[in-house]
Amino acid sequence: MNPNGEKKVAVIGAGSWGTALAMVLADNGHEVRLWGHKHEQISEINEKHTNNKYLPGVTLPSGITGYSSLEAALEGLRIIILAVPTKAMREVLGKVRTLISDAVTIVHVSKGIEPDTLLRISEMIEEEMPDELLSDVVVLSGPSHAEEVSLKHPTTVTVSSSNMEAAEEIQDLFINQNFRVYTNPDLTGVELGGALKNIIALAAGITDGLGYGDNAKAALITRGLAEIARLGTKMGANPLTFSGLTGIGDLIVTCTSVHSRNWRAGNMLGKGQRLDEVLANMGMVVEGVRTTKAAYQLARKYDVDMPITNALYDVLFNGTNVKSSVDTLMSRMKTNEMEDLINILGERLND
Amino acid sequence: MNPNGEKKVAVIGAGSWGTALAMVLADNGHEVRLWGHKHEQISEINEKHTNNKYLPGVTLPSGITGYSSLEAALEGLRIIILAVPTKAMREVLGKVRTLISDAVTIVHVSKGIEPDTLLRISEMIEEEMPDELLSDVVVLSGPSHAEEVSLKHPTTVTVSSSNMEAAEEIQDLFINQNFRVYTNPDLTGVELGGALKNIIALAAGITDGLGYGDNAKAALITRGLAEIARLGTKMGANPLTFSGLTGIGDLIVTCTSVHSRNWRAGNMLGKGQRLDEVLANMGMVVEGVRTTKAAYQLARKYDVDMPITNALYDVLFNGTNVKSSVDTLMSRMKTNEMEDLINILGERLND
Repeated sequence: MNPNGEKKVAVIGAGSWGTALAMVLADNGHEVRLWGHKHEQISEINEKHTNNKYLPGVTLPSGITGYSSLEAALEGLRIIILAVPTKAMREVLGKVRTLISDAVTIVHVSKGIEPDTLLRISEMIEEEMPDELLSDVVVLSGPSHAEEVSLKHPTTVTVSSSNMEAAEEIQDLFINQNFRVYTNPDLTGVELGGALKNIIALAAGITDGLGYGDNAKAALITRGLAEIARLGTKMGANPLTFSGLTGIGDLIVTCTSVHSRNWRAGNMLGKGQRLDEVLANMGMVVEGVRTTKAAYQLARKYDVDMPITNALYDVLFNGTNVKSSVDTLMSRMKTNEMEDLINILGERLND
Repeated sequence: MNPNGEKKVAVIGAGSWGTALAMVLADNGHEVRLWGHKHEQISEINEKHTNNKYLPGVTLPSGITGYSSLEAALEGLRIIILAVPTKAMREVLGKVRTLISDAVTIVHVSKGIEPDTLLRISEMIEEEMPDELLSDVVVLSGPSHAEEVSLKHPTTVTVSSSNMEAAEEIQDLFINQNFRVYTNPDLTGVELGGALKNIIALAAGITDGLGYGDNAKAALITRGLAEIARLGTKMGANPLTFSGLTGIGDLIVTCTSVHSRNWRAGNMLGKGQRLDEVLANMGMVVEGVRTTKAAYQLARKYDVDMPITNALYDVLFNGTNVKSSVDTLMSRMKTNEMEDLINILGERLND
């Protein structure tokens, strides 16, 4: 196989992000097999070249073929893009490992942390896949609404891996004029930034739902970034990564755009809906809810102060009143801003 | 004078921000003299308790009295809030110093850097005011649209000074349940963050005007923050300040809200208007235009790489095509993200 040429790639998961990434790969000349478990959706992809539930109005390029058989989709290739919700990941990987015989590179593009085990997604993948079937794990993350990627709007993302040669191979696979791909060797930071930002997006949706305005939201995002960077740094991430595309960049796009599911879910909570109503209304996975639980557990494990995460946990899982939680949060913040900020880097600089 | 009690304060400048801050002070029980040079506007403030050009639909509290005589406004008080555009600052200070006989604390709430002299606003104030008439200079900055402050929406700001006791006095003066005030000892960083963010807001308005979407804007804001933090750190600021309310916080609110003048000016540029047309249409000062010139000069003086500032300077002052500048910027970014980010802190960590 020519390392700079066209490749065969499977994209596992035909939601909006999996489909948009399949479009980028097909535009780059690769042979793309897009797998989904709903026969009707796969027929639509192959016959009408659309995926209207997830990317309405978009025509898929001819280089994408839909597969409803996972076995057929995986046959004879070395690169798998895994675009399924974190909740479904172990089940899908359990099937993948029985269907392949040669080692593959798995590129995951999901954003979450598993509650209870507290594993990042690359760690879950390593746990599920036998060593002899796994060449490398690469994460692709950044500020990237699927809808805009499908419309070829300029987008930048970051790839990372514990093997930077593998990250660079995936950079080459995806990069083009509209879809800019950067590398960052901090795998832990890239994965944590993408996951933890969904907590702050939920909270930002809540303040918007309460009608508190842009000033309050900017304060919340700023404090939220400080608290996720504090946790991430304790878990071994480079604090600078949280100032990059997969940190601030992704946080901004998720907190300020109506495209974001996590923001939308928070917005409904702020307007007074209950969590079960919100989740029923969304009809899509809201990763931030599970991630809030995981981050709440991580804050205890690593002894990190995370006031926004704690307040959100109480709202989501203990039925605490939304408005009084936000009001307490706003008035309880430290009066010396530097105390908050120095905590981010303090641990790292003392290493 | 009781240090915790009600005080007499003059707010110099009756634009939207000066008026909103006067409202906060009056709500806190202080006697507020709001000075403006337009007689008609001052009559409106005193007779109708409105300032409709700048805060339409808002009723001013009775604790605010409009003054058109600067001498009368300044008589017998120790604290001046200076809320005038940077362009008018030296002229106003020239008058203030001839009208007072006792030393005052000057709180400035503007965001800019003077082109050519390359001075921060606190430095301009120190240059214009004789030592015996100036107790302290304090800056108040942060993510705070005047319109939202006037509606008592939750807002957080930061105060800083080379004398932290003076900063704490101003914190006490302004703080209340809705208007949260934090302290940060990094005067240089607080002033630079507020000023330089207007450059990125202009650029973000341009990408929005070009129709490039949220992904592109998030990338631009992330890269923009990295470049202003790089310059600020070289000028002696604490890099952490750029991760705080006056850095990221203010950047987010300015780049993502239609309230922002700088964003609006950029948006018109992105849609194809010329700079002179844009400035004529705005009818209010667009600080980011002058700040871009100052930052362009500072980047040369301190030898700092600032690609977004340079591209914007060429658009504003050399007539370079907007679309081709942005496209070049997007495709020219470094492929290793960490190279960009490490530069922010590298200088500081090697001290």
